[in-house]
Amino acid sequence: MLLTTVNNPQDLKTCSLPQLYTLAGEIRQFLVETLSKTGGHLAPNLGVVELTLALHYVFNSPEDKLIWDVGHQAYVHKILTGRRELFPTLRQYKGLCGFPKMSESPHDVWETGHSSTSLSAAMGMATARDLKKEKHHVVAIIGDGALTGGMAFEALNHIGHERKNVIVVLNDNEMSIAPNVGALHNYLGKLRSAENYRNAKKELEHLLKSIPAVGGRLAHLAERFKDSLKYLLVSGVLFEELGFTYIGPIDGHNLELLLDSLKTAKQTKGPVLIHAITKKGKGYAPAEADSVKWHGIGTYKIESGDTPKSAPTYTSVFADTMIRLAEADERIVAVTPAMPAGSGLLKFGERFPDRLFDVGIAEQHACTFAAGLATQGLKPVFAVYSTFLQRAYDQLIHDVARQKLNVIFAVDRAGLVGADGETHQGMYDIAFMRTIPNMVIMAPKDENELRHMMNTAVAYEDGPISFRYPRLAIRGVKMDEELQVLPIGKAEVVREGKNVAILSFGHVFELAEAAVEQLNREGIQPMLVNARFCKPLDEELLFRLAREGYDIVTVEEGAAMGGFGSAVLECLAKAGFHGVRVDVVAVPDYFVEHGSVKEQREEVGLTADAIAARVRALLPMTRGVVEA
Amino acid sequence: MLLTTVNNPQDLKTCSLPQLYTLAGEIRQFLVETLSKTGGHLAPNLGVVELTLALHYVFNSPEDKLIWDVGHQAYVHKILTGRRELFPTLRQYKGLCGFPKMSESPHDVWETGHSSTSLSAAMGMATARDLKKEKHHVVAIIGDGALTGGMAFEALNHIGHERKNVIVVLNDNEMSIAPNVGALHNYLGKLRSAENYRNAKKELEHLLKSIPAVGGRLAHLAERFKDSLKYLLVSGVLFEELGFTYIGPIDGHNLELLLDSLKTAKQTKGPVLIHAITKKGKGYAPAEADSVKWHGIGTYKIESGDTPKSAPTYTSVFADTMIRLAEADERIVAVTPAMPAGSGLLKFGERFPDRLFDVGIAEQHACTFAAGLATQGLKPVFAVYSTFLQRAYDQLIHDVARQKLNVIFAVDRAGLVGADGETHQGMYDIAFMRTIPNMVIMAPKDENELRHMMNTAVAYEDGPISFRYPRLAIRGVKMDEELQVLPIGKAEVVREGKNVAILSFGHVFELAEAAVEQLNREGIQPMLVNARFCKPLDEELLFRLAREGYDIVTVEEGAAMGGFGSAVLECLAKAGFHGVRVDVVAVPDYFVEHGSVKEQREEVGLTADAIAARVRALLPMTRGVVEA
Repeated sequence: MLLTTVNNPQDLKTCSLPQLYTLAGEIRQFLVETLSKTGGHLAPNLGVVELTLALHYVFNSPEDKLIWDVGHQAYVHKILTGRRELFPTLRQYKGLCGFPKMSESPHDVWETGHSSTSLSAAMGMATARDLKKEKHHVVAIIGDGALTGGMAFEALNHIGHERKNVIVVLNDNEMSIAPNVGALHNYLGKLRSAENYRNAKKELEHLLKSIPAVGGRLAHLAERFKDSLKYLLVSGVLFEELGFTYIGPIDGHNLELLLDSLKTAKQTKGPVLIHAITKKGKGYAPAEADSVKWHGIGTYKIESGDTPKSAPTYTSVFADTMIRLAEADERIVAVTPAMPAGSGLLKFGERFPDRLFDVGIAEQHACTFAAGLATQGLKPVFAVYSTFLQRAYDQLIHDVARQKLNVIFAVDRAGLVGADGETHQGMYDIAFMRTIPNMVIMAPKDENELRHMMNTAVAYEDGPISFRYPRLAIRGVKMDEELQVLPIGKAEVVREGKNVAILSFGHVFELAEAAVEQLNREGIQPMLVNARFCKPLDEELLFRLAREGYDIVTVEEGAAMGGFGSAVLECLAKAGFHGVRVDVVAVPDYFVEHGSVKEQREEVGLTADAIAARVRALLPMTRGVVEA
Repeated sequence: MLLTTVNNPQDLKTCSLPQLYTLAGEIRQFLVETLSKTGGHLAPNLGVVELTLALHYVFNSPEDKLIWDVGHQAYVHKILTGRRELFPTLRQYKGLCGFPKMSESPHDVWETGHSSTSLSAAMGMATARDLKKEKHHVVAIIGDGALTGGMAFEALNHIGHERKNVIVVLNDNEMSIAPNVGALHNYLGKLRSAENYRNAKKELEHLLKSIPAVGGRLAHLAERFKDSLKYLLVSGVLFEELGFTYIGPIDGHNLELLLDSLKTAKQTKGPVLIHAITKKGKGYAPAEADSVKWHGIGTYKIESGDTPKSAPTYTSVFADTMIRLAEADERIVAVTPAMPAGSGLLKFGERFPDRLFDVGIAEQHACTFAAGLATQGLKPVFAVYSTFLQRAYDQLIHDVARQKLNVIFAVDRAGLVGADGETHQGMYDIAFMRTIPNMVIMAPKDENELRHMMNTAVAYEDGPISFRYPRLAIRGVKMDEELQVLPIGKAEVVREGKNVAILSFGHVFELAEAAVEQLNREGIQPMLVNARFCKPLDEELLFRLAREGYDIVTVEEGAAMGGFGSAVLECLAKAGFHGVRVDVVAVPDYFVEHGSVKEQREEVGLTADAIAARVRALLPMTRGVVEA
């Protein structure tokens, strides 16, 4: 295999074009084989094989900076930069990260996971380069989906204005994760078919030249039209308007075209945008046929493309319940930022095509769009991953909470998320939402309660309300037929007990329950509380616990700083209960890397054993409750 | 005065064009006179007098929805919707709000304060209208500055794609708050001079028609060029590419043109963008001459335009110190999102034109751009108001803190901000930054310490670091000549004491100090601590206080939920000090409306008296410190 001889981008430089094509084939084979055992982002990486080869052939990484937007398409880059042999550990605990990672290689100059950041980073690096009078190239590789994210436009605007030497490779696969949406997408579609226009343009030029009588006058006009003539080219107007030299569209699997374009870009002054058309899943039939499914995938059989049947998840319960609720209440609509599949809402969209809004990768707009819907009496459900809600934070505060609008936040992938790792952990939503007035914050103890909370959210008419649920399979509990409306701010005492109370917030109830069972066997009888609400807190219950001399152990899968446990501490302090012993079991203050959720929980101390140990550690202590 | 007869938009409908012009004059006079006594956003409102008259003439508010982006230009709208007589109370406590406010009038259908939200809101309202099969118009009025905010582009993309009936009025005054920047601005500039191009186009069309020999063939070509021919118009291509019908550019002070354009827009199917060119400060010479100064202004003399000399502020100390630090360290650069004046950085920009980056209203890009600069060893200072940092939250987490980059966050307008009110309160930064790993969070007790903290931030090499300071005049303390590097995570015990310790975080130290003086006179001797750091906390000091049996009163000007006091509670609980009485003096859980900072502090209980009272209330209580 030629591939085994490539351990460094330098090894590519001596390759012939046929050898590069051979490498492309070998890399595809390597990806399909390796990922069949590890899972990972197969389709995006199959789409950028030639592009990555061409980039490393033309540029000198790491002196030249290659910045991968989103980063899930950096596998080929990792293969070419000495990490091929680590691929069997991909996305596993202590193994190769699924995204660029500075600690892995000097070739990873920028870490990603969220989309649309690459152009800003590139502008920063290019600006620093110029200030420091250095000479190197800065190249950002960004997908058409990521380009709809507003911050990418902010960066284009800045780069274009400053006319910085930044090379943007637009990897246009007509997809973000879901099929792409938006006017920009339509625009790119037009560029894709620009060949016709270009032929027509040649025809027109020829025609005009063939009329000598008016040639002189036309030449004069042409001068005045210097700018507008370029519009005849159709392609790239939008980017050219923003100050970029536009190259393309080119076939992103044609190495000759790629090499030529990149070399041209390298020599061009000012910002350049190369528009490369690629096919997600290229070279592996199942992935070409269904690139949504094969965007991120678990293990699979190579021949058939068969994947193990996945168990029902919290997300699928959310999705089914959305349909049930929407059938009963026509005010309910759903908003997703490019995650109709991930959020489970595809089925909802089939059932209610007019009531699902996929706005593309555009969390800010999604949130305020939902707020706008709410002003007119609709009940928008903004289905968003915890980590991506961070991008709509100001909109949550300024547009939703401040105006006390009835927007429902369905916060998916809350808590530890497993293989995607630190960029995707749903760690901060409790803390960053809790500090905002008017928010109601719920988390269900299991999938059955998730449905009740969704019903409660729809019934709630006094402002924004959220519920958070994990990227996990359901527990398999009994599902109530009737959906309830839970009393706002009331916890559920699941089991009465003595001396110590475990207050669990959300899906970690499972762990708290197991801890209690363990403790029961030792003769310790903790009260077991399903907190349900982080805001408003069940103050009545907390005051009762304080008065009756309970120690409290809080449990949540979120950052300890500012989270649910912190809310309990605040509440007791405010009421003047200063002697209650509270121990906060939550995620400590660092970014938790990739691995399985189980491994991550072991690492951070979120297991039944660890909770039981924390309870035991509290118990022998002296007691001294002071009441206000 | 004709104006006194207009108490409702309906009263406009019977006005003649000359009467509308008369009204425009009277409104300008009213604004200049009233605001000379109250202060407010004079220049933006002088710029939209005719536009607002035309909108209320053509549309039927509140059935038709008028959405004011940013909202500081809604004074004329307020005047025309029955609130003229409330203007003497503008921006004052319990008086008229400086931004749209639903509780004031049914004509305020959307509240703003932050920019770039109007298009998303409009898309939400229009979508709801269509789902509910209602018929009315939705009109968003957005400035050219606000259009550079990424979420506006996200919304344009969505509106254009769905071809919704949404009318966007682009109020193009070539300014955001500072003179506008960015490629989009250049593009708009080209449109402004599009008249020449349009004449040229007519000439070309005429020319082509005059060549009968090739006419047929050209007609055929023209068909094929259906889309691209429009580029010959130059104007509006960018918007047309995104699916909008573009009208303009028109003179935004010409009522006939405005009325015509709005009527045309009303009858057009699909999204329309009207490009109106206006002049900020129009009709008042001082404001026309310096619209940056007159964007938001205090009281002034009408004749001369003289304004009272403003006292030095924390912001001006920040600005001066930036220059001093940058002279000594060439790694230091400054990044501002359209706030070179507000942040005090204009002088820095004059001194170091290559080292100040005004990226326009684009907080997300600003933050990640700073991160990019930091990867290359520079020391970017991101100067941003607390309330606007909310918009760069994901970038702070994902791009800066997670990568542990040396970005310095200069968080201005932290705490209560006075007359701008609830949309601008700097209330959440402590809580939303505190929950993020790798952050160092400082707040100076006065302007002298602000300088030391800035110096400390520059010396710090281990990741992001922030300092927060208020929109207030300085205290006038002695300024140290030498700048110090403060030990990270160490508080300053300003005065030893007995029984109770006041831990003050940030500029409210002034209040804590006054409270101590008051208490001293009563024979109570609290320890007075300037906390300096919220993260990392001075655990050693906290443990000492716990061991020695102190009660603790924490003081901060920020949301109580998740803030500095909460951090103290967490720290003590984690260490097993469960008996310490901690009372958290901070801002309670609601959005604090406009007024003076003094009035707002009275309202929320952030005064020396209130702090002293909280200390007294703790003291008589029984003691019972339990140590781990």
